[in-house]
Amino acid sequence: MINIGIDIMGGDLAPQTTVLGAILARKILPSDVNFVLFGDENSIKEICKKEQFNASAFKIVHTSEVIEMGDNPAKAFTQKQNSSIAAGFHLLSKGQIDGFASAGNTGAMLVGAMYTVKSIEGVIRPAISTIIPLASGKVKILLDVGINPDCKPEILCQWGILGSIYAESVHGIKNPSVGLLNIGSEEEKGNILAKSTFPLMKESKQFNFFGNMEGNDLFDESKADIIICDGFVGNVLLKTAEAFYELIKHRGKSDEYFDKFNFEMYGGTPILGVNKPVIIGHGISNDIAIKNMILTTKNVIEADLCGKIKQALTI
Amino acid sequence: MINIGIDIMGGDLAPQTTVLGAILARKILPSDVNFVLFGDENSIKEICKKEQFNASAFKIVHTSEVIEMGDNPAKAFTQKQNSSIAAGFHLLSKGQIDGFASAGNTGAMLVGAMYTVKSIEGVIRPAISTIIPLASGKVKILLDVGINPDCKPEILCQWGILGSIYAESVHGIKNPSVGLLNIGSEEEKGNILAKSTFPLMKESKQFNFFGNMEGNDLFDESKADIIICDGFVGNVLLKTAEAFYELIKHRGKSDEYFDKFNFEMYGGTPILGVNKPVIIGHGISNDIAIKNMILTTKNVIEADLCGKIKQALTI
Repeated sequence: MINIGIDIMGGDLAPQTTVLGAILARKILPSDVNFVLFGDENSIKEICKKEQFNASAFKIVHTSEVIEMGDNPAKAFTQKQNSSIAAGFHLLSKGQIDGFASAGNTGAMLVGAMYTVKSIEGVIRPAISTIIPLASGKVKILLDVGINPDCKPEILCQWGILGSIYAESVHGIKNPSVGLLNIGSEEEKGNILAKSTFPLMKESKQFNFFGNMEGNDLFDESKADIIICDGFVGNVLLKTAEAFYELIKHRGKSDEYFDKFNFEMYGGTPILGVNKPVIIGHGISNDIAIKNMILTTKNVIEADLCGKIKQALTI
Repeated sequence: MINIGIDIMGGDLAPQTTVLGAILARKILPSDVNFVLFGDENSIKEICKKEQFNASAFKIVHTSEVIEMGDNPAKAFTQKQNSSIAAGFHLLSKGQIDGFASAGNTGAMLVGAMYTVKSIEGVIRPAISTIIPLASGKVKILLDVGINPDCKPEILCQWGILGSIYAESVHGIKNPSVGLLNIGSEEEKGNILAKSTFPLMKESKQFNFFGNMEGNDLFDESKADIIICDGFVGNVLLKTAEAFYELIKHRGKSDEYFDKFNFEMYGGTPILGVNKPVIIGHGISNDIAIKNMILTTKNVIEADLCGKIKQALTI
């Protein structure tokens, strides 16, 4: 029996798409998975009714406040204690839900995670990742994609461990390899950060270090499965990929593969390095993206991602 | 009358493609443009003969040494004084050629430029740029793309001036605007470098500051014409664009527009901020890329890019 908490008020198109996404997920997940929805009870019931879906399939935790997309994260989280995000983290830290997912204010989700369930002991900085789809159907993992714009070598090196556990336990990548995003393949290439990180990664026995990865290696299956960079570079890269996807689509050149670059359709990404499963979705998630976010949350809970990271860091 | 110096020994496919490229360019440029080829005289004459092209259309400066792609730049440049790159810079600094272009060892070209013609007084760090093609046929300019992996705010800010002069005088972009590559549109967003650069750019009266640019703004015509970032981020971005181009081509989805992302076909890029026109081509340049590199060199000379940058920095 697992309990998934879902922020119904988070996301640009909430609560409409969040409720629709929850209905889609509810229909395909088994009955031993409970859904706990955080948000305005009336709105949730009304949307369910319109969809001719029995709202009693959900446990609803009514909340009266909303953390808006533009709100200051720390302020909003502490002041809006009756918001869906604050209520979700409250139940998550008490163990009444096993994971919490939201497509709402990313900053507030981070603040909530750090204030309540907190970083795993030994984790220097939690990170978020994105999937890079490959033509074979496999994926690579890129991290960090935005929450750590300034990094130190030890942080990047530790993400090699976090990324490896995530890639293996959630994405089924066996014995994953870790690459350092850089501007040359040789060991001595790079900026100060990359040059200082390379020897740390090379010496690490906690993951398989591949070596440097360049921008043009991103889709190369023979290269590393996990690509590590600071959150500034990762965020620029992620958004550049989005720009290319839009360009390809706009020119009528998309296909089944390129459609996988539609990051709106991904089910969000767990915050790697916190004590409980916290999943952050894309702000402009539609109902299918919300459904996928809920499935991701289930996978992260069942894979015991947080437990495995904890274990790796206490060895 | 202008004299263009071309390194015949530089590039993965030299001297074959470099001579072929020079022949292509020679055929379309007027007779008041002189070509000075630096390289092995016999090879040059042999290739011309095979092509049934009269080698006397070129002035040949015979050189007996070659700086290889894998050579240590500073070492090779100082030790191989009879190399095509060393000889080219020698004549460039003496004013016997007006510009020098090579698809060879980029590091050696940089070392050569810094040792001989040198940085323009006041320029903190020279930079190289790339073109971002837009669907309308216009272009944006991105810099730096690799020679400055670690930067300070004053460097990025000054590139706003260099980029603006280059965009206007060589690419005909009227009254260009300058954007700072960042991970959010708001002023306070970014890593330490971006946050410190923003106020400097905002205060600058030497270019039109647009504000922050994100990865997904790259192809947006309504956004800035010039995008400034450190050479680490710029190089990752450039190579990511190459990766997307390869992916699009590989899936048979290319078209006239996407073909413009084939950076091999571009005619190289000038080093912005040095006293004379020095143009660096892509290592894997084919004959058409070499031809374009020569045309770019002519444009940079005729636009008096170096003179204009000098003037802007002495005001």
